Amino acid sequence: MRPHVIVNCAMTADGKIAGKARKQVRISSPEDLDRVRRLRTESDAILVGVNTIIADDPHLTVRGLDRDRNPLRVVLDSNGRTPERAKVLDDRARTLVATCEGCARTWEGAEVVRMGRDRVDLHALMRELETRGVRRLMVEGGGETIWSFFNEGLVDEYLVFVGSMVLGGRTSPSPVDGEGFEEGRCVNLGLAESQVLGSGILLRYEVLRDVPPA
Amino acid sequence: MRPHVIVNCAMTADGKIAGKARKQVRISSPEDLDRVRRLRTESDAILVGVNTIIADDPHLTVRGLDRDRNPLRVVLDSNGRTPERAKVLDDRARTLVATCEGCARTWEGAEVVRMGRDRVDLHALMRELETRGVRRLMVEGGGETIWSFFNEGLVDEYLVFVGSMVLGGRTSPSPVDGEGFEEGRCVNLGLAESQVLGSGILLRYEVLRDVPPA
Repeated sequence: MRPHVIVNCAMTADGKIAGKARKQVRISSPEDLDRVRRLRTESDAILVGVNTIIADDPHLTVRGLDRDRNPLRVVLDSNGRTPERAKVLDDRARTLVATCEGCARTWEGAEVVRMGRDRVDLHALMRELETRGVRRLMVEGGGETIWSFFNEGLVDEYLVFVGSMVLGGRTSPSPVDGEGFEEGRCVNLGLAESQVLGSGILLRYEVLRDVPPA
Repeated sequence: MRPHVIVNCAMTADGKIAGKARKQVRISSPEDLDRVRRLRTESDAILVGVNTIIADDPHLTVRGLDRDRNPLRVVLDSNGRTPERAKVLDDRARTLVATCEGCARTWEGAEVVRMGRDRVDLHALMRELETRGVRRLMVEGGGETIWSFFNEGLVDEYLVFVGSMVLGGRTSPSPVDGEGFEEGRCVNLGLAESQVLGSGILLRYEVLRDVPPA
């Protein structure tokens, strides 16, 4: 069985995950950051796209957990653009870089899997993670990566913290970017829970597979 | 005193107000549509931008209210692009088209006010509405119009219904588009209320004027 996929992100009250310069903005409240830490601890793997690595250079580790108890870090990187000195390659946790068959690059500090011709085949990656014992996968972004998971029908839960601010900007990135669904199509969700966490609110959705597209 | 300005909109759980083709999508639940009707009834005027008129051709009236009890319809139309046959020009309610000083166009079925050189001066428009007895103004969109109001510091309340669906798309319109705030700037909100309305959830915010930009 493929991993249970949880998309987790934070957006502003006007649907932005960063400002127009795409620089990281603190949207989550301290209470929400606590929640994210717990969610990471309960996950077997945490996945982000390479754009997030380049823009934000996150560790993707849980403070206080040692190397073997930290979730596996997975970077979705079809064109092999992960910088050599990215923090995600440090020795605080194990790291897997998923790239295409044609990419020959290697990274010190990471294992590499190659699948798919031009883009990483996400279904093959799910099978790979399954064989590695990943039952619970957390996808943290960015918008293009989250789009790929929704577009491939691979999301089980969608968690979005809505921060109490407005950023504006017609080019500011959103939680789910990519091509977007054609007219008349969408992913239908069921609102399972809402919870005020400090200054903002967490919305938890389950993906409704049986509902036909609108 | 200028009118109390309430921005009301509906977005998907990934922050979109329409799909990538910018066609109108039903995001609100029936329960939310009831709420919007009540909010319109309680408002003295309803304002939208001309792009919304062109894209969606809304009536902007409340069913069951006669012409004089319907809120004043206001179209923000700096370049005089409102189509002659737009439904907002029908006789079901009074209509005001706000355009620039240089725009000579007139519309049957609407009164015209001209203020500002290249763009309608929103502060002058607020004064104009005040003299007409508008105490409560509802701004319904679209994203460029709502941006203008936030950017001019003219929003008192922000109401956003979050529909339980994902549309995706890096070019899909969002509740607040426009230029977007420069790095380090944003509008800070206070979450005043959240309420499940059918399949989605309404978030009501008050704009915090005294909090310095992040």
